[in-house]
Order: sequence, then structure tokens, then C-alpha cells
Amino acid sequence: MTESTPSAGSDDLFEYLLRLGDDRLVLGHRLSEWCGHGPILEEDIALANIALDLIGQATIYLGLAGEVEGKGRNADALAYFREGVEFRNLQVVELPRGDFAFTIARQFFFDAFSFHQMEGLQKSANKELAGIASKGYKEVRYHLRHSSEWLQRLGDGTEESHNRTQGALDELWRFTGEMFAADDVDKRLADAGVTPDLGTIQTKWRAMISDVIQRATLAIPSDTFMLAGGRSGRHTEYLGHMLSEMQIVARSHPGAEW
Amino acid sequence: MTESTPSAGSDDLFEYLLRLGDDRLVLGHRLSEWCGHGPILEEDIALANIALDLIGQATIYLGLAGEVEGKGRNADALAYFREGVEFRNLQVVELPRGDFAFTIARQFFFDAFSFHQMEGLQKSANKELAGIASKGYKEVRYHLRHSSEWLQRLGDGTEESHNRTQGALDELWRFTGEMFAADDVDKRLADAGVTPDLGTIQTKWRAMISDVIQRATLAIPSDTFMLAGGRSGRHTEYLGHMLSEMQIVARSHPGAEW
Repeated sequence: MTESTPSAGSDDLFEYLLRLGDDRLVLGHRLSEWCGHGPILEEDIALANIALDLIGQATIYLGLAGEVEGKGRNADALAYFREGVEFRNLQVVELPRGDFAFTIARQFFFDAFSFHQMEGLQKSANKELAGIASKGYKEVRYHLRHSSEWLQRLGDGTEESHNRTQGALDELWRFTGEMFAADDVDKRLADAGVTPDLGTIQTKWRAMISDVIQRATLAIPSDTFMLAGGRSGRHTEYLGHMLSEMQIVARSHPGAEW
Repeated sequence: MTESTPSAGSDDLFEYLLRLGDDRLVLGHRLSEWCGHGPILEEDIALANIALDLIGQATIYLGLAGEVEGKGRNADALAYFREGVEFRNLQVVELPRGDFAFTIARQFFFDAFSFHQMEGLQKSANKELAGIASKGYKEVRYHLRHSSEWLQRLGDGTEESHNRTQGALDELWRFTGEMFAADDVDKRLADAGVTPDLGTIQTKWRAMISDVIQRATLAIPSDTFMLAGGRSGRHTEYLGHMLSEMQIVARSHPGAEW
């Protein structure tokens, strides 16, 4: 399934799988904070379903990361027993859930990224990764439809919903550059045909979000200084708070809730 | 679908649908508190899925209750705009989630009840209710398998897990009598063939839980004074706390999260 002796290739793959897994684990947990706090039962259920998909995907990627690493860590070990600096998620997914407009705007930016990422990964030279991405692609298509439709409903809704959604897009914008900031890991994996080129994803992402934002009668935020650091373990203060809550049960009593 | 002019029959049916809906709404919310706090990713996902099923079922029952009532209240209105005294759930489902053993023991007692309730409701003279129960039956079968298997794993596990689970069963026992305490509403509906007889359900429930508890090397709690009151709106202090958190978003800003 995977090489048993680490090589440059398997280190890169491990790193990339952590990125895929951590993005989804952290975002899934943020989204699950809506459980029981939504304004409408139906939307409560929809958000929880999406959170479940994301955490399910994270479990698969982190499980595979553990296999590739070959040190006996499984998905739970990687989720519950790493420190914040070892997390490889984008900063955008760790920000507090905010209001409903903020949640929808973040999901939309991430879904549009993940959609093109999964689309590209389906053609990965790594057949296992291609297979997983193929299942993830079907899920993210649904997520993207959900967040796009809400974005349009909110943007084209009341003045209040329009303004809040525009505010969320503007606030989130500086976190979106990190999605496409390719480092050496990305370049080597893309050269080897394992992962899609981030520049190509960025072009497609930009076209897609521009289209949806305009149809939502909202404005594409002006370009600004882009934040980054998540991929190398530099995170906002919010990740630490989230992890301490997420990890306490597993760390206090490995394997059970006491 | 339902009578447009209220009669004694539709009042009873409204009341019964609230009981079905509220049990599942409150338990689903209690269970969703585990989102992101489980000790194992897989179990986090399993509990969240069960919570989603329960909230989904609640939405259906409360939606139907609103139609039967005929006063223009939908499932959201019933979930978010009733006071605690108007809730008709069993007290057992409103108790705090406790530790994992408590959560599993409660799910087990409730699943075994709901399983036989749904089994009976599939034969309801009310065809709409029978159809809904038929779908619910499939879901609760899975829930019951999940909680039974965990009960056995915990009971037959470490000394700690055994003791905690026995403690949970003992603590919950006095809340189980309420499931079977038939009032006039239950009697009239059972006589009309709309709902199954609670005495019959109790016999089946008792046989099932005795069997599973014994296989889990646990003891059936000794009979004790049984608490009741939830069906007529008398609740523990815990329901109020839960509702204030659950309802605040919808009440502050009807229809949206701000």
C-alpha cells in the first residue's frame, strides 16, 4: 500500500496527508459547534451532516498519514496527541465559528478550494489517494452547493444579511491566500503527479468564487496582504483553545471517556 | 392528511406526537453535546449520526403535530418557541450527558423503548404515523445495536468501566418507569388502535434489557420508586438550562442567526 522505508517521497506524502486531514478535522469541529445552536432544525441537521463528512474525511486522511509515516500512529493518535505546532491546517479553518454569515462564507471559500483539490486528486498517480478523493469529491460537491446557495440567499436577502455576509467575505479574504501558497512539498508532489498544481486550482477557485459572489450581489474583496503559516505549524491563538477542548478526553483517559 | 377541525381524537394525537417528538429532540440535543468531545474519532462520528437521526425524527413528529394542531405552528415553532412546561419528553432524556457510560446506558434504555414503540406504531391505524414509524424503526434498530454492543463492551470491560456502567444503570433506573406510565391519552389512542399498548411494550422492554444487561455481566437494578411527570410538563431543572441554550438563537432573531 505504501513504502515501508521512509524516503523523501513518503515524508512529503505524510506532510500532505496531514494538511488534507487537519483542514477537515479542524473545520469539522468548528462546524460541529453549531449542533443544537442553529436557528432552524433543518439547517442544524444540514450543518451537522457536513461536519460529519469532514470529520469522516479527516479520519481517512489521518489514518493513511499514520500508515505512510510507519511509526504506529493511527488517526486517533494524530488527532488527539499532537500539539498545535504540529497541526498543518490552514488558519482559515481554525477561526471561531462567528455568526451564520461568517460560517457560510468560510465554508464557501473552503468548499470551492476543496472541490478543485478533490477534482485534481482524483487523477493522482497515487491510486489510493485518487480513490479517496473520488469519494470526497462527491461529498464536497454537495457541501459546495449548500454553501453557494446560502451565500446567494444571504447576499441577496435583507440589508442586514447582505452587510454581514459582505463583512464576512472581507474579513476572511486575507486568509484565503494560504490555500494556494505552494511550498517545496507541494512542488515535489505536483511534479511527481501525486497532487494537482496549486496555481491551477487557484485560477479555477478564483473564477468560481467570483461568479457566485457576483450572483449573490456581493463584492469580491480587494486584494490585500495575505496571511500564512498554518502549513508550517504557525497558528492563531484559536487553534490552541479548540485543541485543548477537543483533546482533553482522549488525553486524560486514553481509549475511554473517564 | 389530518382532520381540519379539532376533536378529542386530534387533541390526543397532537399530545402523543409531541411526546414522540420531544423525547427525540431533547435526547438528540443531549447526544450532540458529544460532538468533538469523544475519546475516539469513530465514536464521535457514530454518536453524532445517532443524534442527527433523533433530531431528524423529532422534526418529522413535531411537523406532523403542528399540522394536527392546525394553528399554523411548524416544527421550528414547536421546538424553539415553547416553554419548558409545554415540553412532553420523558425526564430521562433531559438529564445531563454524564460520562460515556451514562450516555450509553441512557441510550440503551431509550433505544430499547423506542424500538418496541416503533415496532408497534408500524401497525398504527393512522397510516401516516405507521409510515413514519417504519422508517424510524430501521434507524432505531441500528441505534439499539450500537448501545447494546457498547453496554456489553463496557460491562464486560475493565473493573472501572464495569463499575461506572453499573452505577449509570442504577442511577437511571428510577427514570425508566415513566416510559410505561399510561395516562388517558395513551389509553384512548391504544383503544383506537393508533398506538401500541404501553403494558405490552413494557413486558418486551423488560425482557430485552434483562437479557442484554446479563450478557454484559451487569446486574438489573432493584425495583425502586419511579419518578414521572415529564409527559405532563413537570421536568428536572436540566431541561430549562438546555432549552435556554437551544432556543436563544431562534428567539433572538427569528429565522436567522443574528
